[in-house]
Formats: sequence, structure tokens, C-alpha cells
Amino acid sequence: MTRIDGRSADQLRTVRLTRSWLDHAEGSVLVEFGKTRVLCAASVTEGVPRWRKGSGLGWVTAEYAMLPRSTNTRSDRESVKGRIGGRTHEISRLIGRSLRGIIDTAALGENTLVIDCDVLQADGGTRTAAITGAYLALYDAVEWMRSENLLSSSEKVLTDSVSAISVGVVDGEPLLDLCYEEDVRAETDMNVVMTGDGRFIEVQGTAEGAPFDRQELDSLLALAGTGCKELTDLQNAALVG
Amino acid sequence: MTRIDGRSADQLRTVRLTRSWLDHAEGSVLVEFGKTRVLCAASVTEGVPRWRKGSGLGWVTAEYAMLPRSTNTRSDRESVKGRIGGRTHEISRLIGRSLRGIIDTAALGENTLVIDCDVLQADGGTRTAAITGAYLALYDAVEWMRSENLLSSSEKVLTDSVSAISVGVVDGEPLLDLCYEEDVRAETDMNVVMTGDGRFIEVQGTAEGAPFDRQELDSLLALAGTGCKELTDLQNAALVG
Amino acid sequence: MTRIDGRSADQLRTVRLTRSWLDHAEGSVLVEFGKTRVLCAASVTEGVPRWRKGSGLGWVTAEYAMLPRSTNTRSDRESVKGRIGGRTHEISRLIGRSLRGIIDTAALGENTLVIDCDVLQADGGTRTAAITGAYLALYDAVEWMRSENLLSSSEKVLTDSVSAISVGVVDGEPLLDLCYEEDVRAETDMNVVMTGDGRFIEVQGTAEGAPFDRQELDSLLALAGTGCKELTDLQNAALVG
Amino acid sequence: MTRIDGRSADQLRTVRLTRSWLDHAEGSVLVEFGKTRVLCAASVTEGVPRWRKGSGLGWVTAEYAMLPRSTNTRSDRESVKGRIGGRTHEISRLIGRSLRGIIDTAALGENTLVIDCDVLQADGGTRTAAITGAYLALYDAVEWMRSENLLSSSEKVLTDSVSAISVGVVDGEPLLDLCYEEDVRAETDMNVVMTGDGRFIEVQGTAEGAPFDRQELDSLLALAGTGCKELTDLQNAALVG
Amino acid sequence: MTRIDGRSADQLRTVRLTRSWLDHAEGSVLVEFGKTRVLCAASVTEGVPRWRKGSGLGWVTAEYAMLPRSTNTRSDRESVKGRIGGRTHEISRLIGRSLRGIIDTAALGENTLVIDCDVLQADGGTRTAAITGAYLALYDAVEWMRSENLLSSSEKVLTDSVSAISVGVVDGEPLLDLCYEEDVRAETDMNVVMTGDGRFIEVQGTAEGAPFDRQELDSLLALAGTGCKELTDLQNAALVG
Amino acid sequence: MTRIDGRSADQLRTVRLTRSWLDHAEGSVLVEFGKTRVLCAASVTEGVPRWRKGSGLGWVTAEYAMLPRSTNTRSDRESVKGRIGGRTHEISRLIGRSLRGIIDTAALGENTLVIDCDVLQADGGTRTAAITGAYLALYDAVEWMRSENLLSSSEKVLTDSVSAISVGVVDGEPLLDLCYEEDVRAETDMNVVMTGDGRFIEVQGTAEGAPFDRQELDSLLALAGTGCKELTDLQNAALVG
Repeated sequence: MTRIDGRSADQLRTVRLTRSWLDHAEGSVLVEFGKTRVLCAASVTEGVPRWRKGSGLGWVTAEYAMLPRSTNTRSDRESVKGRIGGRTHEISRLIGRSLRGIIDTAALGENTLVIDCDVLQADGGTRTAAITGAYLALYDAVEWMRSENLLSSSEKVLTDSVSAISVGVVDGEPLLDLCYEEDVRAETDMNVVMTGDGRFIEVQGTAEGAPFDRQELDSLLALAGTGCKELTDLQNAALVG
Repeated sequence: MTRIDGRSADQLRTVRLTRSWLDHAEGSVLVEFGKTRVLCAASVTEGVPRWRKGSGLGWVTAEYAMLPRSTNTRSDRESVKGRIGGRTHEISRLIGRSLRGIIDTAALGENTLVIDCDVLQADGGTRTAAITGAYLALYDAVEWMRSENLLSSSEKVLTDSVSAISVGVVDGEPLLDLCYEEDVRAETDMNVVMTGDGRFIEVQGTAEGAPFDRQELDSLLALAGTGCKELTDLQNAALVG
Repeated sequence: MTRIDGRSADQLRTVRLTRSWLDHAEGSVLVEFGKTRVLCAASVTEGVPRWRKGSGLGWVTAEYAMLPRSTNTRSDRESVKGRIGGRTHEISRLIGRSLRGIIDTAALGENTLVIDCDVLQADGGTRTAAITGAYLALYDAVEWMRSENLLSSSEKVLTDSVSAISVGVVDGEPLLDLCYEEDVRAETDMNVVMTGDGRFIEVQGTAEGAPFDRQELDSLLALAGTGCKELTDLQNAALVG
Repeated sequence: MTRIDGRSADQLRTVRLTRSWLDHAEGSVLVEFGKTRVLCAASVTEGVPRWRKGSGLGWVTAEYAMLPRSTNTRSDRESVKGRIGGRTHEISRLIGRSLRGIIDTAALGENTLVIDCDVLQADGGTRTAAITGAYLALYDAVEWMRSENLLSSSEKVLTDSVSAISVGVVDGEPLLDLCYEEDVRAETDMNVVMTGDGRFIEVQGTAEGAPFDRQELDSLLALAGTGCKELTDLQNAALVG
Repeated sequence: MTRIDGRSADQLRTVRLTRSWLDHAEGSVLVEFGKTRVLCAASVTEGVPRWRKGSGLGWVTAEYAMLPRSTNTRSDRESVKGRIGGRTHEISRLIGRSLRGIIDTAALGENTLVIDCDVLQADGGTRTAAITGAYLALYDAVEWMRSENLLSSSEKVLTDSVSAISVGVVDGEPLLDLCYEEDVRAETDMNVVMTGDGRFIEVQGTAEGAPFDRQELDSLLALAGTGCKELTDLQNAALVG
Repeated sequence: MTRIDGRSADQLRTVRLTRSWLDHAEGSVLVEFGKTRVLCAASVTEGVPRWRKGSGLGWVTAEYAMLPRSTNTRSDRESVKGRIGGRTHEISRLIGRSLRGIIDTAALGENTLVIDCDVLQADGGTRTAAITGAYLALYDAVEWMRSENLLSSSEKVLTDSVSAISVGVVDGEPLLDLCYEEDVRAETDMNVVMTGDGRFIEVQGTAEGAPFDRQELDSLLALAGTGCKELTDLQNAALVG
């Protein structure tokens, strides 16, 4: 089987990671997975939310949103509707958990990092692109804190890297990094968030059509492992380059 | 290791499934997983949302909410706050997807089923209890439709049953059906939704502390399989009794 | 005239008052007036709202809400609509005033009691059932405070008991404790809140159809007096039992 | 006892009813009860809300609001807060019910009358002033409909007049038409809505301090009867003048 | 050309400025530009918003709103809609800026003045009437502060007066002080806010139909200058009278 | 005087106009005025809002928003706050009016064009950059409609081009195209929207500090004329290139 865009089943789309795309943010990355384009901006603030004060621990949170015309047809703005939709909430929470999975909040001290992930263009995999880019924005923001002497501890704040990829079964075949057209047709859809050393932070598999069995689950997990490994390499290259 | 409430690692809490707990709803179940108590009510309406009109297909959706004093300390009402939180959205969507995984929307015809899952008391596992109870409420609502001649097709509307259970790693040990106290201490937390024939509809695993590896994932999936099988038996018994 | 459900004009529906229906709440009651079923939960918090700080006086407030499928046909959730309706506001305020009518806020000290009244099933008289049940939840919460030494004063916090009942004129005849079907047909509808010693805390009479005259008002007040007396006895029995 | 403003116990404040205070509205009245000043505007629209379509019946509804600086100290606008408070809801509903108590919706036909009651200055009794003024605005709007041939029936649309007054017990004495300072100090507070022929549309009595007994209730009802009778005369005079 | 209401091109409508229209507010004015009627109320509060604390500077802000039936056909309340519209925001901000243009916030000290401008009846030019009236309300509130010894400085708080007028091109002719009917037909519409000494605080010109050229702009500015001068005289007269 | 960034008083920042920055939108432009970066996306929909149906006329509207970290310090999202701020409303309305000033809505037919202007990075002049870029996005969307045969008329839809620039007085000197730092220090601030043939669509001048006189106004208008002329040339070049 050849895929819509000519890729092989286990092939990522072209990934681009452009650091420092913004001038003001303490860390920022424009991440592209094919036509999917997400702007990740990390903001550092002294202090933590009220419920965490005095704990000595920092806090990392994320907000995800889509521009109204990032999609094929225009969607109404959530600010205009006056409420945030369930999908937006869900993805914001997922990104936040993913980043908290690799941060040592004690080493961060009582500081807050907010990572804004705004989808400029959507073509499937926006949440996985967001996590993959957000890691680099977070990395740069932590480096900035170090350079500004805002970290009291000399210990490593980031315990590992984190990346994410979508996998899915389309026409019976497990595929890596689904574009929008594939995503719509997928029977099973899975988003996997992994650390640089190959462990899981989050596994979210959903039967869109028929339920899936253990064997399908295993092949999807294997495919995701390959994809995240490759993304880790690209993240490391971006940090060097 | 003995668990807080004396259960073995692979033991469910006492499960109670009380059908027809309400007089008005087309289907209703009070489901209890230990102290967790969720009221599931199924409502039938003719017609489908606008975007689905003319498709010949029905629609199933769910809304989850917690009473303010279902928890240890009182939480503010979402109606008073004027907005629905991310967690509520996330769980409502999960329940909806789980039920849609076992329904033949063509056989349902252009009718809508709304399943309200209101947590009267929370002690961990509210979303899995909700899914397990919602299945029975859905079942009864479909039977009611059959008896009222609201189904044009004679085909089966429900293609299988569905149940859900939480599993997690606490102090390094995989446990089934976490109560609140265990849930808070879990390093890894997973919710698994399965059909009666043992396939997956949804797998959601999250590293709360350290990332987890493939071996942990496998043992949690196995444990969940055991739990869902037992819940399936209890659901079947409730339908007979 | 025989009533829809065979009761005599001055007869209450079967009343059930189940204390401690919940495990977490400081006081809780499942109150049933026939098919009407309301869960009342009392929550104790140290401190009072800002505008009352330093007064030495406590505060009691209530929130009323209906589950979406408590009614014959499903209603949308107020949390989903993003705003609380006028009727909900009105009843929450009525319950709060009724409870404040029998509490000595000086003896309570600077503590807050919130009584949540959630209608699990509605068949007329939800607000009067809520008040009648809320009194017992409040009673148990105050006892709990006493047992936990949270009351600085040894004086009685509750100065009396409180109960409430609806009365109305249906087909020209004054009836006690209207069920939904009667309520819809009532020409005049009145809710009366009374203390255990037979005085009034609130009288709310409304002409639904034609205006009513003084004689009708008098007969309704008399009927309500009978009903509240009986409810007081049932409350006392529940406290003993 | 002499009252704060020198009135006797059963004396109304100076009442002014200025018809046609606005140029655009189909009916409008500036009503003054002493310093309390409410602008009532009646708007006529063809058609009725969706749930009433095809019934042949009209609809009357009311909206009450206070200008931010109508009160002694400025209150925040409900539009700025983004939500309507319980008190506002409660009073809007009361005014609507009061007006519906004297209207023949069949004679009105499928038309809607909205009565806006905006408090320009508040000094107690704003809801009773609003009802008293709203009647005249409604009257003028119905006359306007008649003159524009918008009424298909030649029957009387208004079956009677309606007025309202507050009464209360202050320092043990029943007083008519409480001003703000008296209202704050009242032990019992009652709002009574009556038709021109002396029957009740609404009776709302509330114990602000100690519960009240039947005798107090009776004396307050008598006082209200006197007040409403006087208001009816003033309304009739305004219609003639 | 004769205008709809018989005025000449450079003629204001009848302007009425009634000070102290309210009893509670520290300053209040009912301003009328023909049928346009705006109630301006100034409220004094000690202290300033958080972001201004410790600056030694005061703050002036304004809120503009329209009563639902101030217009020809009824508009929905913004409080009922749950959100403030763009036009309301825009005008509130304009009034605030206009007043801040003539106030010495250092002489005001850390106090806040809120000016509420509520349109009781609208016939074009509501924002310019509001600014013109708000100045007098502000003046009276500052005088009140002086008399209550709330101003620590003896310096003048108001550096000048401020008034505003609309001008526009209708059927090719520049007109002063447009009424609603003219405003709707205007090709170009301009609102000009000027100080008593003839300088500009705000100039807002908008092409409603075809773009306008420099010559039109100049003639409109000249016309506005005439109008504001006249309004300044009327304001001064009102302060004396 | 040399400006912060070395420009002369009448010099624009480096302007970049990148067409087709997005793949899905019918027209899209990334516009940069120095560090200010705004993404403009035009969306075409058949049909017009309800109030315009059957008129034969099309509709053009715009929505402006800032990404949370477009600014020096992070701002909260309006979707999270649940309401749109006054400034956002004001600018969205300005952009919409500016574009409607050059469109022949009859030639457009009953179609709607929505132009989303999202600020990716802000350094002053975001609204003027947005208008300047939005024109090109609009142009491309109209061309797309032409190529898709969605325009029934063969007449020109755009009657001219439109651009906008900010001007202001800083330290007594009129400057063109203020960057953020200059904008903050400006005594007078003006935004001018002009057509390609040099006429005005909108003039908005505001005294931020002291009021301004006619001479200052004139010099600012002249400066704006120069700037808009240059922007028109750049727009034309972008359409050719």
C-alpha cells in the first residue's frame, strides 16, 4: 500500500523544528509535521499558583488552541463563543502532563512555565507536534532561566526529553504519523508520548470504528516507538544546530 | 501487600448495579463500585443533531458531572462557575466514545440517546463505574424503544456490551480498580474500556510520577482484562436478574 | 373528590427521610415526598464570606439544582448552558433563607454551612422536600461540629426545626402536597415554610390562573399548617430513629 | 411612633405616575414611590416564543434591572459581571407573573409584550413600584395595539388592573410601603400584588429575623389591602388625567 | 437644504443639562440632545485599581450602556446575553479617555471616579451627549470630594472642561449634531471631543459609504469646533445656574 | 532626533508581505511591520448573516486577536477568560469597516468573507499591519472566488486598495509607524486608514497626554498620507511579484 502522500507505513512526514521563532518569549519553536504547523511559546513567571505556594516546587502548564482558519473550513473562535471546547481542554491537559513527566519541579523552584501551543495550520497530529515542539521551547526557557540566574539549584531541571507521535490503523494497516485525511479514515487512533530513553508518559488508544485487539495494540505501540525515537534524534539535532 | 481496604491486587470492589432506579428515564442504573456511586440515566429523543440529519444514522452522547459534595471536600458547582472544567469535558467525551463503540447507529435510526452520568459519591474510578453503568441504562433505553416501536429496523442496535475499569501501579505493584486513596498514590494510572468479547475500545495510560515501561504496560493491560471480564459477567447477571 | 394518587385532600404523600445517605458529607439526607427525591448534603467550612469577617457570626447558604433527567423529559444542564436559570436561583435563595430562620449565627461562630439540595427525581414539591430534608442535614452537620469541638459556644445553634409544604387549589379544592400533575393544574399555588412551633418563615402564594381571595388564602394556610406539623413529627422521628 | 420620613404607619410615600415618559416605546411610565424611581417601558412584538407558537395565545414577560448607581453605593453592572443575579431573576419573574395575572392571552392573540422595568433610583419598594407602573405601560401598549388594529379580537385584553405594595414589621409595628432604611430594619417583610377588585395575585412574606405568627400575617395583609386600593385609585386617575 | 427637524446645517438640537438628577450619586446629570437622553452618574471610591496602587495617582473610568427600549425597536439586554458588545465597549472606552484628558490624576490622589452613562432614550449622538453630560457629573463629584475633604491637594483636579459632538456628511452636506435618521444616511460620520480651550482630545472619522477626502475632513472639523464651543458655553451656564 | 531603531521621522519599518502563507485559506498573508507579525486569513462562505438575506449584497467582517505570548509579557487568553476585551472588539470592528470601505458588496453577491487577523508577535502598529495585510488576503480570496466561478457579476468587487498606518507625536515630534516603545511614550496617537487613491476611510486620533491642536493634527495627517502611499506601493508590488 502506498499512502496518500507517498510515504511508507512507518515514515514520518517532513519534520521542521525552528527555534527562537519569536523575539519576546523565553523559549519558542515553530514545529512542522508536514503541513501541520504549531507555534510553541514558553513563558517564565516567578511564583506558582496559590495551591502550590510554599511547596518549594515549580509548576508547568500548557494551553493549546487552534487559529480559526488553521483548518480546512473556518471554525468559530472559542473566545467569541465564550467557552473552551472539550477537545481543546483535553489536549491542553495532555500537553501539560507530558511536559510535567520530564521536569524536576524541585530543581525548577517556585517558578511557573506556561507553554502556549497555537496551531497555525492543522493537517493531523497537532497535539503530537505540539508536544514535540513544546519540549524544545521548554528547554530554551530553562536555559534562559539558568543564564538569568533564576534557578537556585544547580541540578538538572529536565530529566529527559519528550516527544509524541500519532499512529493508527487505516484499511487494516498500522500507519505512523497520520495526516488529516488518514486520521479521518482510521479505525483505531493512538497518540503515544515517550521520553528520550523510550519509556511511556502517555498512551491514548481509541477505537474509532470497530474495537481493536491486543495484537493491533502491540503493532501500534511498536510503530510509535520507532517514530518517537526518530523525533528524539531530530530534537537533539535541533538543540545542537 | 494488603490493600487499604483488604482486597487482593486483582480484586474488584463490591459492585452493585441497580436497574430502573428512576421512574421517568427510559433507562437508568445506580452503579456502585465500593463507595463510588454514579447515577446513569438514558434519555431517548427523536431526531439527531443538525450535522447528522438525513444520514439515517442515530447518535449517542454522554454527559458526566459530579455533585458538589460527592467528594471529600466540597467543590464549587460548574453551573455556578459558569463553565465546565477540562476534566468533566474529558470524561464526558470518553463515556460517549465508549458507548458509540458498541452501537449500530444505522439500526438505531435517526434517534438520539443521551446518557447522563451523575456522580453522587466519588471514591475513585467514577469514569469506569459510569461507563459500566451507562451500558445497562443504554440497554434498557434501547429495549424501551423496541417496545414502543420506535426502531424501524429489526436488527440489533447494540453490537456488544461495554465495561471499564481502572488499573494502576502503586508502590511498584499493579492493582485493579483503584479507590481514591490508591489513585492519589499511583505512579501509573490507566483506564481501560473493553467490549464483552474482550477487545479494546479505549486505553488511556498516564505516568503520574516516573514514566513507565512496556512491561508495566503489559501487566496493567492483563489486569484490566480480568477486571472487565468480571464486570461483563455482573452486567449480564443484572440483565437477567 | 379523589386525588390522582388516591390521597385525601389533606394527606401528605409517603415521606421518607434517610439520614447519612452519603459517607463524606458532615450531614446528609435523602428525602422523598412520594416520587420526588432530593439529596441534601451539608458541608462545614471554617470561616465566613469576606463581607461577614470579624462579625463573630456564622453563615448558612444553600444551592438547589436538578439533575437533567430528574424530570419527565430531559432538561439541559445549567453548567452546559453556562448560566443558572431564574427558577434555580429563586429556590436556592428560598432554602437558604428558610434555614437561616432557625439558626443562631452567633452560636455558630465564624463558620459556614453550605447545604446542597440536588433533585434526583422530580414529581412536584422539590423545594419543600429540599427544605424539609435540608433541616436534618443541617442538624447532623451541627452535631458533627459539636463532636469535633468546632463550636466555641455551648449554646444551641438551631433555635427550632423547619419544614415546608406546598398547598394549592385544584378544581376549586384546596389540596396538600401537590404532585407534579396536580401542580400543573393548580389555579393557586402556595409554598409555606414553618418552624416546629408553628410560626411562619416564608409564605409564597401565587395565582397561576385567576386571582385568589382572602378565604382561599386562609384555607390554604390552614392546610399548610397541618402538613408542616406532620412533617415536624416525621423529622423528630428521624432524629430519634 | 413616627416614621423616619414623618409618615403614619398606613401611609404611602408620594406616588407619581408619569405616562409616555419615552417617545419610542408603545407604552412607558416613570413611576415614583418617594425617592424610588423606576422607568417602565412596554414593547410590542408580533409572534410568540417558539414553545407557544400555534396556541393562539399571546405572551407577556418582564425584565427588571437596576442602574449601577441607583443605589447608595455603586453596584457592578450585571452585563459586566456576565451573569444575572438571583435577586434580579426573582423580581423579573415576579413582575411577569403579576402582569400575566390580569391579561387575557387569548384576546391578545399571538403577540408578545415585554415590559422593561429599569430602576433609576432605589429607596425600597422597587419591585412594587415596578409592578404598579408596569400595569400602566402595559395598558398603553394594549391601547396602541388596538389603535393600530393589531388585535384580532374585540374582547378586553386586560381583565383588571394590578398594583403592588410592600408591608413589613419594624420594631414590632406593621408599616406600609417601606423605604430602604425601614426595609433594612424590618423583622418581617411582605410584598403583596393585588388586582383592582381586591384579590391576590401574589403574596410573598419572609421572616427576616424571628418567624412571624398568624396574627402578624393578618395585620400585614390588611395593611397591604389598604395600600393597593389607594394605588389602584392613583392608577385610574393617571389613566383619566 | 432644510434638515429633517428644521434645523440649519450648523445648528445643535435643544440641549438640556439637568444637574443633581439623582439623590445618591456624588455627581449626576440628565443630559438631553433633542430626544437623546442620557443619565450620567459619578461615583467616588477611595483607592485605585491594583495595577495603579502606590502611584499616588487617581483613576477615572466610564461605563456606557443603553436601556433595552431606549431605541426604536427593543434590543436584548447585554446582561441577559451574558456579554458586552463591541460598540458598548468602544464607547465606554471613548468616554473614559475623554474624561482622563482633562483630569490631573495627581491632584485627584489615589481615588477612583466611575462615571456611568446610561442611555434612557436614543436618537443619535448618545456618545457625544454622554461625554458632555459626564463632564458636569465629574465636576460635581470633584466638588463633593473637596467639600468632604477627600482631596489632599489644593490644586485643581480638572484642568479644563470637555464636550463632544457628532458631525457628518449627509447628501453631500456637512451637518452638525446628527439625529438618528441623519446618522443612518450619513456618508461620513465623525465624533469630535474637544476641551473648553478648543483643542482635541479625540477625533474619530469614519467613511460609512464612500471614502472622504481632506477637504471634507476639514469642513467637518470646523463644524465640530463650532458645536463644541457652544456646548462649552452651555456647560458653563449649567455650572452657574 | 534619531529614533530608537535609527529610523528617520517619516520612515516606515521594514515591511514584508508574504502571500499564501497558509495552504487551506482562500487568501492568506503574513504581514510584518518590523517585529510586528500578523497572520491574515480570508475565508469565503456562501450566504450572508440572517439580517442581510435577500438583499443581494455580500458581507465582509474581520476578527482580530493576539496570541498570548505575542507581547513582551504573557497575557491571558480571551477564550480562557470567557470574554473578549474592549480593545479586541474595537480593533476587529475597525478592520471590518476598513475593508468594507473598498468592497462593492453588490458585486460580491450574497457571500461572506471573514478575515482573521491573528497577531503572532506585537511591537506596535498591529491594527495597521492587520489592515494592510488583510487587504491582500481579501484580494486573493476574491480572485479565488472568480476562478471558482462563485461571482455572478463580472464587475470589480474591490473598488480600490486599502492600507493603514499609525502616526504619533513623541517628545513633540510627529513620527511615522510607531514601534511599541514609541507608542507608549506618544503624547498623541493616530491611526489612519486610506485608500490607494489617497482618500480616508478612518481617522482615529487620541490625545494620550495633553490635548492636541489643529496644527499637530495636520502634520500627523500629512505624515500618514506619505506612509499609506508607500504601503500602497508595497501592496501593489506584492500582487505583481
